[in-house]
Parts: sequence; structure tokens; C-alpha cells
Amino acid sequence: MTSTLILLRHGNSDWNQKNLFTGWVDVRLSDQGVAEATRAGELLAESGLGPQVLYTSVLTRAIQTANLALEVADRLWIPVKRSWRLNERHYGALQGLDKAETLEKYGPEKFQEWRRSFDVPPPVLDDDAEYSQVHDERYVGIDGEIPRTESLKLVIDRMLPYWESDITKDLAEGKTVLVTAHGNSLRALVKHLDGISDANIAELNIPTGIPLVYQLDDEFRPTGPGAYLDPEAAAAGAAAVAAQGKK
Amino acid sequence: MTSTLILLRHGNSDWNQKNLFTGWVDVRLSDQGVAEATRAGELLAESGLGPQVLYTSVLTRAIQTANLALEVADRLWIPVKRSWRLNERHYGALQGLDKAETLEKYGPEKFQEWRRSFDVPPPVLDDDAEYSQVHDERYVGIDGEIPRTESLKLVIDRMLPYWESDITKDLAEGKTVLVTAHGNSLRALVKHLDGISDANIAELNIPTGIPLVYQLDDEFRPTGPGAYLDPEAAAAGAAAVAAQGKK
Repeated sequence: MTSTLILLRHGNSDWNQKNLFTGWVDVRLSDQGVAEATRAGELLAESGLGPQVLYTSVLTRAIQTANLALEVADRLWIPVKRSWRLNERHYGALQGLDKAETLEKYGPEKFQEWRRSFDVPPPVLDDDAEYSQVHDERYVGIDGEIPRTESLKLVIDRMLPYWESDITKDLAEGKTVLVTAHGNSLRALVKHLDGISDANIAELNIPTGIPLVYQLDDEFRPTGPGAYLDPEAAAAGAAAVAAQGKK
Repeated sequence: MTSTLILLRHGNSDWNQKNLFTGWVDVRLSDQGVAEATRAGELLAESGLGPQVLYTSVLTRAIQTANLALEVADRLWIPVKRSWRLNERHYGALQGLDKAETLEKYGPEKFQEWRRSFDVPPPVLDDDAEYSQVHDERYVGIDGEIPRTESLKLVIDRMLPYWESDITKDLAEGKTVLVTAHGNSLRALVKHLDGISDANIAELNIPTGIPLVYQLDDEFRPTGPGAYLDPEAAAAGAAAVAAQGKK
């Protein structure tokens, strides 16, 4: 049975505004992020795609994005499933640090390696650090698996099992599935879907707030390239994300 | 194991503003309703109760209320379950009618009977009527059970099985459960919890937007009376609901 998968990266957050590394820190959407989520809902509504089930991370900015978009698209009523496995990459000891200061302190090579290498995680975050999540109530029950830092490779390692155990179950029933998540958890999923190599994934930038639509076959493989619902805005958004890395 | 149950009636909707019978028609919160939901979130946050799982109907105004309240209370991340069994009472052929006009047309006796009798449903709504839900995508799969009109008794008949099959499962694990729903689905639940008679339930009015908290024993029975998180506002709100019925 074929199915439709819609990926949506949350919009601009308070810490994007402040240029801080965020990761698992639970910040909220900025006003710009709210506007992006609203626009995403308009694009969903215009597309007529009608998502039938929603998956989100357990981070507020992704949930806010989904709630706003589905409210605009008049589909708040669909079932919702959440998992920490869709969370943003854990940025380790960089969480809460200013990006410009980090760049200055560690130099462009280390900085870029942490941001875009496939398998080099940043330094680990101490459990007693201000921006650690080890005492966060929402992760009770997964204690053994709470990361202290993650590379993109580690994100794939904890995201893919959920794709296979849960998301593909809804797809197998022919449902249209919306996944509202983060830059790196979605890059991890797109890498899997499009078969992008470890070397080439660094070049993939997913713009915020623009639904990316895949048609999948009965083995959950894309029948063609993913299509953004607003291709022009998506190209501009991806370029902006790429430029951000080059600051 | 003891547990905590929090009931929250959605705030003022667009059709409350317009004085129309709503029932299963999927209208949105008014600005006043948004303010009420926000206030409910503040009360939840101040109480420190920390709901661990959310139940809602599949009607937008209840979901909006829950989303707003949990965003304010910083708990958007909790798991969510939705069911049509928590929907408002189906108002039959009255759905979409102006309350004042209905009162004038049918007289105060009939009007009051439809609004507050225990087991007299309003006339059935035709399946091809503008405000019928029989073709609404969200009820695909429960076709055989979509009501065409309901008395409070019929609401109890379709709500209680869900209480028993699903909500009490979470309570049995000692979880703090938030149920965000409607005037009549919550009256049905409070009738069950407090053992209110069929005759006396007409007098029970639940105010909008004020969390009502029960401590339950291991048989899901209240260990004392339900307590509103803002008792003064709740008393005023209940009086306003009662007065509405006497217009």
C-alpha cells in the first residue's frame, strides 16, 4: 500500500534568535517561528493532503509548530504520538553556549566539525550542568538512554528504531503521516529515505516551516524525490540554513 | 493506588458568543475562550499538579483549550489521547439554531426539557442537514455509532465505556490525568464520580476554564468532593451557566 509522509521542521525559536546552541533544551518558538508554523498550516490546507496522524518530538517548539499548523489546517483532531526519539540532536556541552563565542573560542575547524560532521559528537554535557536533561520529568522511564551528547550518526541510531517500530505502522495502513520535528532528526530521516551517504549528508539543509512531502511505496521507500509545498521559499530557507553554518 | 483526575471544560466559543446550539458542530474558541484557557494553564501551573497524560474530545474547542493550558503550564510534551466519546452532547436538530429563537418557537417548557432533562433528546438531525457530522472524516470508523441526537443519558452511555476502558487504565498506574472536554460530557463524568441522581443532575453546572480536581482511590472513586482550583471564580461561573439556562 502506498502512503504519504509529510516532514515539517519547527520554526525559529527564542534561542535561534539569541544565536545559542539549543539541542534538547526546551525553548519556545519566537514570534517569527509562530508565523512560520501558521504559514505551514496554510500550505497544508492548500495542498489538501489531510494528515491523518501526527508524530512529534517531546520538545515544546516542535509541538507548538504542529499545534499551530494543524489548527490553521483544521485538523487538530487527528491522533498524536510523541517520542524523544524525534528530538533534536543533543548538542552536549555546547547546549546553552553562544554560537559566535564558541566559534571564536574553539576555531572554525572544530566548530564546523561539531555542527556538520557525521560522527563526531561535541564534548559531553555534565549531568549537573544547567542545561542537562537528566532530571527532566519527561524522560523518566528512558533514563538509561538519555544522551549527554550526540553526533548525527547517534541521532540516526536512536531515531530509526522508532521510524521502524511506530511510524511505518501507520504508513503501512496507507495513512498520511505528519512528522513535526527538528533540523537534525529530520536530516537523519531524509538521509535514510533518500539513501544519502555519510559524506554527503553535511550538504543537506532542511528549511524551517515548509512541509516536505514524500510518496512512499509499500516498503516505505520514496517513489520520487521529496517535494516542498513551497519550493521557492524552501530553496531560500535551505540557503539561509547553509549560510548560518558559514557565519 | 491513588490518583488525581483534573477535569477542564473548554472556554467560550464563537457559537457561545452568537448564542447558537453547538453540540458536535466543530466551532473554535472565541477570544474570551482563549483567555479562559490561558487562565486555566496558569491555575494548573500554580497548583503544581503536573498532569501526566491528556485526554480530549475530537472537537477543536476542547483541543485548543488543552493546548493553550498545557503550553502555559509548560507541559505540552505529555502524551495525548482523543476520543469522540468525550465529545459534547449531540444537540440533534437544534444544532446551529439560535437559542432565543428556539425558545420563542417551541416555548420555555420544551426548551428547558431539551436543555436539562435527563433522558429526553431533542429531535434528530437529518443526515443531509448542514450541521450533521455523518460525513465528517474524523468519524470514519465509528459510523455505526455517530449520534443524530442525544440526551444526557445517551452521553453517559457512550462516555462511560471509555472512562472504564481507557482513562482508568492511566489512573490505575497512579498517573495524574487531565480530561479536557465539554459541559455535558463532564457533567456525565461528574454524575458518575459523585453518584448524583438522574433527578438532581439538572442542577449541576460546570463553569468553563477552571480545573476541577478529584483525588481518587484505587477503585477510581473520589476520596472527597471535587475542588476547583479557583473556587470563587468557579462559583461565579457556575451561576452564570445556570442563569444562561433561565434566560
